[in-house]
Order: sequence, then C-alpha cells, then structure tokens
Amino acid sequence: MVAQVDYSKRVHVNTLRSPQMLINQTTSARTYTFDHLPLQRGGHLSPVTLAYETWGTLNAKADNAILITHALTGNAHAHDPFHPDDAKAAWWNPLIGPGRVFDTDRYYVICSNVVGSCYGSTGPSSIDPRTRRPYGMRFPVITIHDMVNAQRRLLDYLGVQQLAMVAGGSIGGQQALQWAVSYPDFVRKVVVVAATAALTAQAIAFNEVERQAIMVDPAWLCGDYAPGHGPTTGLAIARMLAMITYQSEEAMELRFARNSVQRERAPSPTNFPDLGGRFDVENYLYHQGDALAQRFDANSYLYISRAMDFYDVSEGYESIEAALQRITCKALFIGIRSDFLFPAAHVRWLAEKVRALGGDARYTELDSPHGHDAFLKEWQQMAEALSSI
Amino acid sequence: MVAQVDYSKRVHVNTLRSPQMLINQTTSARTYTFDHLPLQRGGHLSPVTLAYETWGTLNAKADNAILITHALTGNAHAHDPFHPDDAKAAWWNPLIGPGRVFDTDRYYVICSNVVGSCYGSTGPSSIDPRTRRPYGMRFPVITIHDMVNAQRRLLDYLGVQQLAMVAGGSIGGQQALQWAVSYPDFVRKVVVVAATAALTAQAIAFNEVERQAIMVDPAWLCGDYAPGHGPTTGLAIARMLAMITYQSEEAMELRFARNSVQRERAPSPTNFPDLGGRFDVENYLYHQGDALAQRFDANSYLYISRAMDFYDVSEGYESIEAALQRITCKALFIGIRSDFLFPAAHVRWLAEKVRALGGDARYTELDSPHGHDAFLKEWQQMAEALSSI
Repeated sequence: MVAQVDYSKRVHVNTLRSPQMLINQTTSARTYTFDHLPLQRGGHLSPVTLAYETWGTLNAKADNAILITHALTGNAHAHDPFHPDDAKAAWWNPLIGPGRVFDTDRYYVICSNVVGSCYGSTGPSSIDPRTRRPYGMRFPVITIHDMVNAQRRLLDYLGVQQLAMVAGGSIGGQQALQWAVSYPDFVRKVVVVAATAALTAQAIAFNEVERQAIMVDPAWLCGDYAPGHGPTTGLAIARMLAMITYQSEEAMELRFARNSVQRERAPSPTNFPDLGGRFDVENYLYHQGDALAQRFDANSYLYISRAMDFYDVSEGYESIEAALQRITCKALFIGIRSDFLFPAAHVRWLAEKVRALGGDARYTELDSPHGHDAFLKEWQQMAEALSSI
Repeated sequence: MVAQVDYSKRVHVNTLRSPQMLINQTTSARTYTFDHLPLQRGGHLSPVTLAYETWGTLNAKADNAILITHALTGNAHAHDPFHPDDAKAAWWNPLIGPGRVFDTDRYYVICSNVVGSCYGSTGPSSIDPRTRRPYGMRFPVITIHDMVNAQRRLLDYLGVQQLAMVAGGSIGGQQALQWAVSYPDFVRKVVVVAATAALTAQAIAFNEVERQAIMVDPAWLCGDYAPGHGPTTGLAIARMLAMITYQSEEAMELRFARNSVQRERAPSPTNFPDLGGRFDVENYLYHQGDALAQRFDANSYLYISRAMDFYDVSEGYESIEAALQRITCKALFIGIRSDFLFPAAHVRWLAEKVRALGGDARYTELDSPHGHDAFLKEWQQMAEALSSI
C-alpha cells in the first residue's frame, strides 16, 4: 500500500509543449514515461509518455482518487487552482476545487492527456525513436482501450489502489465507460456524460468529412509537415464542422439566427473574400477554426477522432451484454436533450441496458439547448447531476 | 395571345455540355438566350442563356404550363420520356409523364436550369464576354430572385400566359415560393417542398463548411481552374457533407449502421489509405462525392449554395407578412418529418403563416426517414401529396 507519494523525486515537471501549440493557460503538467504499451489493434508504442495534472492529496488507503477523462481536443488541464473562478482557465474548472463536486479537499483528482494527443503525451507529433523524426501517419492506430490502459499504468505509478470515481464527457465518456468495463474492481463509481455504446453512422460520417478536410490541405503533406507548419486551413475547416455538431440547430438559432457579422471579423480558413456578405454564424466558426488550428496538432485530430469512431463497448467481448454486465460499480449516465452527435436517447438506452443486466445504473438528462457542448457549459446542471451519484 | 409555338425555328437544340460534365442521361435541352438580367444584389448579367426542357404541349390559351424548379446540383432534365420508368434517368421522372401527377397529356411541363448552374445556363464556367475567359469568381452574386426573374423571361419567350402550377423542392422550393410572391397574378398553384422562408443558422454553417472545403483544394486556384481541371477533391468533400445533411441520422443508421465497407471500394477524395479500416457509410460518401465531382462545376456550387443561404422571402418587402400576403394562389407546403436542413416545423410554420394572412395554404408532411432527400425518393407519398392540390 502506497501512502503519500513525493512526486518531485519521480517525475520531471515540464510545461506542455507541442509543435503548433500556443497555450495561454497556466499549466502544471507533469509527465510519466513507461516502456511499452501493447495496442488493441496490433503493434505497440514504446516508450509512452503521459502528461497529467493532479489536485488534492492521495489518502493513506490510496482509494480517494478521481480520474477525469478529457474530450477530443482537450488536455490534462481540467482545473486551474490559480484561477478557480475562471470557467475558461481550464475545461472543467467550475466543477473541481475545494468544496466543489470534484472536491479537492477530499479527493485526489487526476486528469491525464490521452495517448495520441499533442499536449505532452505521446502522439503523432512525438519523435519516433526508430526514425528520430515525428511519427506523423506512421503512428499506430490507437483506441479508447489503449487510452484507458495507458491511464491504468499512470494510476499504478501514482500509487492509486482504487478509483473513487472516473468521469468524463464525449470521448472522455467513452473512456469512463471503458474503465468500468475493463477494470470493474478498480472503479467504485463511473459517470459517463454525452457518450454512448458506439457512434452512429452519421457521427462517423461527420468525423470522416473533418479528416478529409484536413488531408486536402496541401500543407498536410501526408502528415509529414514540419513542426509549426501544419495544415491550419484544413484543421480550421474540420473544427468549423465539429463545432456545428457540438451545438444544435436550436442553440445556433438563439445565438446567431441570420444576423450579419456582429463581432470582430476573423479570417476565413481559406482567406478568400466573402461571397456577397458574411453571416455572424460564419464569422463565429472562423474564430473557432482559427483558435483550434493555433493550438492543436492535425495528425492528433485524425487519430483521436478515429478512435472515437472505432469505439464500440462490445468489442473484445462476446456481446454487448457480456461487456456491460462487467460494470459492477455505481454508474451515472448523463445525456443532453439537444445533443445530435451522441443522442440522448442512446445514452438513456445504455443506462437502461446496464440496469436491465443487474447493474446499479441511473440516467439523467441535461435540459439544455447547447447540444453536445452542454457538458462544458451547463455548470449548474452538471454539478447537480454529479452530486446525485 | 400566343398559341402553338414552333420552337424549332427559334431555338437551337444542343446537348448539355459543361467543363467537368459527364452526363450519361439522354438530354433534349434547348437553350434560350436574352440580352440582359438586372440582378437583385447589384449589377447585371449580359447575355444570359437558360437551358430548358419541355414535355407536353402548350394549349391555345397558353395557360396550361407547369414550371418545375430544380435543386442545387440539379438540371433541366426532370423527366426522360425515353426512359419513363427509370427513376434514375431524370430527377423527378416518376412524377412526370402521361397520366402522372405532372400529366404531360394535359400540361405543358417546363424545367429550366437555373442561372449560375453549369448545365447549359450562364454560370461561373461560362465565358465572360468582357474578358473572353470563364467568369470564375468574377461571376456576380446571384439570388433566388434572379433565378426566378430569368425563368420569367423564358416563360415569356415560350409564350406562356399563366402558370397552372410551379413546383420544386429544396432550392427549387425556394424558387417556387418566390414565384408565388413575385408574380402572384401569373401563378395559379404553388407547391413548395422541403423549403422554408429562410435557412437556419445551422444550414448556413454547413453550406459554408462545404464552400471552404472546395476552396482549400489547391486545384481550385481562386476559381480560375481550367475546364476539366477543377477542385474535384474539395468538391467531393463538400458533397460528402451535403449528403449527410440531405439524409438523417435515422436513415443512415438503417442503411449503414456501423458496418464495414460492403460494396465496391471507392477512392476517398484525398486518396490517403484508410486509417485502420473503412466503414460502409464512409465508402458510400466517397462514391457520392466522386460522382458529383465528375458531373458538377465547383464554382457553380459556391454560387448556388450562397443563393440558398441568402434567400429570405421577406427580402425586398416591408415584413415577412407583407411578402407572404402577396400569395394569392392555392399553395401546398410539403415538409419531411426527418429533414434537418429544412426542418418540417419551419415548413409547417410557413404554411400556417400564409393561411393566417388569408391565403389558401395547406401543409402536408412526408412520413419518411430519408431526410431532406425524401422529395427525390418517396414517389408514392410525393404523388399523393401533389394530387391533393
């Protein structure tokens, strides 16, 4: 049994850095490197580095840890203790901290950047030790299982004996679900937000259009762009489409309707002059596209969105029932009324399926017009839902 | 009053031809050229050619004409009298012909390719007489009004005194609606299918992603690609996204679910190897993208989709009420249950608005999972709906 761990002796503290990254937030990410990760779809990664942050203290029994799992373009910076009241300073900031639902006075809260990402963990922009060049598209196909198995290695390293909870939304929700299936004895509670047993054909289709938009950009160079010279146009277009799928018709109508541009004009990804005018919704998407292109790696986008497509909770088990029956912990599934990427009905179906198989599962729904993104916006409803488990 | 017209003396019959076009269907399009079309957003086009087809005979009173208006990538070939039972030989083939709802024994049915298109009408791929080069992006911004006003010129030329009906879906529905508003005395019945008073912010956003995907393709060359060397990759990606918006989550789930590729493999737009496998839905979209890229002009896509964005039935009138009050003819609005590009609730709202303003408007809904595309698939329901007016 590991008690208090002095990490300063075992890890090197570094600042998140990645080729295309301009990180404005204060980060305190540390990294953990291990030798070898066998991969679900074949092959392995070696070595593997995970960037992670922690808040709070691991107790003597090492069983008060909460693992927070992030979404596609997220990172380990779920909480910013220096700016705890700034919702934009970290992606789940309002939910984490002393006295909050993820209470850092009581829990040891951990968030790790996933394998495949560009925020300090091993991904396509990392140096392939065999070639001494970035992996690029020679990076192996990775899955949600691989992300979870790498996190498991990190938790072992951190001395965690059991997770009090694992919680995440979107791809983070897929990871949380897989945690409960892969490691039932290690998890006491799981919260799956805006994630389902597997993506719909429509969601896969949107993801593939996004990937093609990245790859048509001549700067992509089949993935072998130099650090800092990636396909920012294609990535911005991909993000524009993704942002539509993260919101909803209703939310966009409330916010933009058919208004002409009403804010600072952003460059369009291709920079071609507007064709007869500019709608506010277009300008907003240009801003969003540009912001992601400045902070994220295009190849990481390809690999992580592909992992999202491939995820199917039944994979590796005889049936979906066989997979879901493994969930022995308390489970909360949170759907979002207006989510069309991970439809609420599918989240509810999953919760009901787990309960029908004898699991302790509950479903609750965020009544929000904000679509998939509501799990990053509806703080009050999220806090209430999370308090209920 | 013009009675029977001998068109052979006034028009030259040609085969539809356009830079990138590979048309497999038998066409009998004729063209009509006139000098000058003033444009709603400023400027003018000169000269203007419209390609069109007709079936049936204009009666002595010249008031039995039906105008069929086509969608974004459509053309004048709504009906193929040589292959009347092949639904793929022409885009509304099953609805047009002797004894069908658009009865060519009784009506003189006309379909004209819109201004801005590449199927024989003046569009961005046409030669600009001022420069003797294709217009490219020097083509002026065109609107649904402009399309309608050009069609009006064609009908005058054909000697039509009054339309028995104007009918169309999607952008064709926008045109039909505008016909009833712009020329109330000229139209006896209007059928607006899967079209609304104006696009939602979400639909504009999807269109803009499609346009950016075309423009990021290096072969686009700011619109100045040589005939036959257009941005086929970008256009294919745009079409992939459009096809998602023309269908529905429900339809894609029924047809593709999460199946692996189950048909002849199509090249992906960017031709990069699959990342870990290929889903059937992806392969289907590759096929669809490739097919459009082989038959349609990328600049026409930019201009016509923009006209779709800009359309707002209230434009040019004091209010939407002032515009809709002008509709004095019998009106049928047809929504599609699963359409998320032109939501059925918005089509219904439009019908109710016209009725509330004293108009003779009725609403009916196609109960189809096929999304927006249902107006090109649900022949039985379409025929029933069209018979009801």
